Amino acid sequence: MTMELWWERADLAYNEKNELIFANHNVHQYAKQLGTPLFLYSAERILANIKRLEQALHATGLKSRVFYALKANRYSPLLTFIKSSTGCGIDACAPAEVRRAMGCGFLASDISYTGTSVSNADLDFLTGLEGLKLNCDGLSMLRRIGKKSPGREIGIRINPAMGTGYGENELLRYSGEKPTKFGIYASELNQAIEIAAHYNLTITRIHFHTGCGYLNDQLEIWEEILKTCLKMIRKIPSVQAVNLGGGLGVPLTPKDAHLDLDQWSTVIQRVFNGTEYEINVEPGTFIAKDAGLLVLEANTVEKKSGKRFIGVNGGFNLTMEPVHYQLPAEPVLCHFQGNKEETFAPAHLSPATFAGNINEALDILYDDLPFPEISEGSLLALINAGAYTSSMHSNHCMRGEFNECLLLDSL
Amino acid sequence: MTMELWWERADLAYNEKNELIFANHNVHQYAKQLGTPLFLYSAERILANIKRLEQALHATGLKSRVFYALKANRYSPLLTFIKSSTGCGIDACAPAEVRRAMGCGFLASDISYTGTSVSNADLDFLTGLEGLKLNCDGLSMLRRIGKKSPGREIGIRINPAMGTGYGENELLRYSGEKPTKFGIYASELNQAIEIAAHYNLTITRIHFHTGCGYLNDQLEIWEEILKTCLKMIRKIPSVQAVNLGGGLGVPLTPKDAHLDLDQWSTVIQRVFNGTEYEINVEPGTFIAKDAGLLVLEANTVEKKSGKRFIGVNGGFNLTMEPVHYQLPAEPVLCHFQGNKEETFAPAHLSPATFAGNINEALDILYDDLPFPEISEGSLLALINAGAYTSSMHSNHCMRGEFNECLLLDSL
Repeated sequence: MTMELWWERADLAYNEKNELIFANHNVHQYAKQLGTPLFLYSAERILANIKRLEQALHATGLKSRVFYALKANRYSPLLTFIKSSTGCGIDACAPAEVRRAMGCGFLASDISYTGTSVSNADLDFLTGLEGLKLNCDGLSMLRRIGKKSPGREIGIRINPAMGTGYGENELLRYSGEKPTKFGIYASELNQAIEIAAHYNLTITRIHFHTGCGYLNDQLEIWEEILKTCLKMIRKIPSVQAVNLGGGLGVPLTPKDAHLDLDQWSTVIQRVFNGTEYEINVEPGTFIAKDAGLLVLEANTVEKKSGKRFIGVNGGFNLTMEPVHYQLPAEPVLCHFQGNKEETFAPAHLSPATFAGNINEALDILYDDLPFPEISEGSLLALINAGAYTSSMHSNHCMRGEFNECLLLDSL
Repeated sequence: MTMELWWERADLAYNEKNELIFANHNVHQYAKQLGTPLFLYSAERILANIKRLEQALHATGLKSRVFYALKANRYSPLLTFIKSSTGCGIDACAPAEVRRAMGCGFLASDISYTGTSVSNADLDFLTGLEGLKLNCDGLSMLRRIGKKSPGREIGIRINPAMGTGYGENELLRYSGEKPTKFGIYASELNQAIEIAAHYNLTITRIHFHTGCGYLNDQLEIWEEILKTCLKMIRKIPSVQAVNLGGGLGVPLTPKDAHLDLDQWSTVIQRVFNGTEYEINVEPGTFIAKDAGLLVLEANTVEKKSGKRFIGVNGGFNLTMEPVHYQLPAEPVLCHFQGNKEETFAPAHLSPATFAGNINEALDILYDDLPFPEISEGSLLALINAGAYTSSMHSNHCMRGEFNECLLLDSL
């Protein structure tokens, strides 16, 4: 039995030759052939993540459906794979996302739309799609839909003024004491009901989303949020489905534990037991994040003023979360020489700072990570690169080129 | 004489009909025709900014040349305009930027290249371009160029371990007490000189860049930085040109004053007086930032929990600096009804929060700006949107579409 690194798991681990294997593929070999920067996505892991969610929801005894938040990763082959392999729908937030999803095989009725600052041009498109589950983010949108398309069914996004997720990370607060741009607050709920009645709109869905990246420690506050929302929901007897949003987190550091889906499902069951609502969730991170790697080449290894820098051929324009959201994506070696126990023994590790190729001071992908020796030309894989990575890429400094690959054959 | 708002100037102001005129164009009319989101760039303003810099450098009595930092805005028509109208060169930091510049009419000899985490593949391309002013960011790059292309001339980027710019904004610290990824520190300078000698490389240029957005208050520390750098430069007798980097700021709020170019030029003159160096600078922000507007439509105006939100048809994926760098881009009305003094009287303004159309809590383009009344359908222009805006755009949430237009006819 060899040692296991914190992020290793059955489908992502070193083999006996110290080569990183992901979804049955030798990452180093594959990346050398396809070229870097390279995103690798595991269809098997995506499927497993969706199945675990579906099973947890099934355990509540309530009707349910999972929607995948397309904005997390809109790589077309991945979308078609999800549609053809699961019953999962799509959470979209822009007309172009709806078009992308339908272009990949989803029906309008598979798509839940919840967006902010929605224009009249957006509404012309959205209200024309029969079966689309359209949710209103505020009174203005509700009124404009009413005028354009009276008598239809509609969902509304509510805001319970309570938030959770990623500890104290202010950047990802979707709902809390300070008013955010999202949803309809309790103070405006009666007005929303009146507007809906005025235009003969039937509110059949309630949506809310209260933060990103919640794990076990946040389940207690999440339960309070669900209860608060339920009070708001009960004011609208026509509601048939409740969308709990996304926000389910995955471990990003050795300190994080996996979200306990049994506990999670118990919370939902406790709050919604006895109701007839269909429960929906729409995670992006939970489905796709740990199903992707970003493989980069270490092209520069040197000390600057005593600090070890490892320069790589990609920057924060390919992976924004570590830099702009303080959400780490740990770099790991794609292969190494020698004994695993020795290579990763704390005494053999020293701090390394991973610098991207964007000409900005903040383009540091990981600061002072205890790391083995590494030579120029080695390949590194950033783990947890399956969500909010390629989908947020820019061509800043014209360093925006990369390859993408959906790994299917381990299924 | 009517009142003047802090950002108004000869080429960007309301006319007597309260319409915003930018470079002789009625912004509202133009944007209605072309569609929003729309970036408008003024060729006249770009030219004026370059000329002001050239004149300030000329006043030092030293040889000089300005290089435009392409990463600030790489819109091709704008690049060709700069090449055909000025003697300005290009600062590039990636092979694709070099290709873009040459594709727009610049010669390799017009281009100064200073990049970080440069790969061997990059070097194959860069060392093949005769006349390109190639600067080494560290010992590894210097060594690899020496092996690949011994006997050539070369520049090096040094790091004086001192920084300036945008007050205390840690995000934009390029150089300071904590080692950054950039350049060669004093502690490694002798090694750099030895490597260069070993490969018969002649160091003809020194480059440094110590922060973004410095204004008058930072000129004193900037002078100290120049003096520190000069000490390092004097160790290399073959140096012919000194590149002071970019970093010259522009006012982003009513509290900021314009950088005093006379003072700036006097600082350069004081430090480099009596030397024979050609002085280079490579600003992006100073040349392009106040020469661009981002026009958006206010599609949603409503209160949420008592707070006034103005939803617009663009998000931080089109304008990252306000959200991720805390550098404001103030929204202004493209036209308004009634008397200017009354409309903008403090008593008639109330806080407005401008929300983008990206499904993220942090997608707030401006929080609590005192602002006049506004109705849905109105157009807004974000000022100071000419640099680090479109060039950093992403297609996050598939909200990445926009139009761009170079306004030329006011010249």
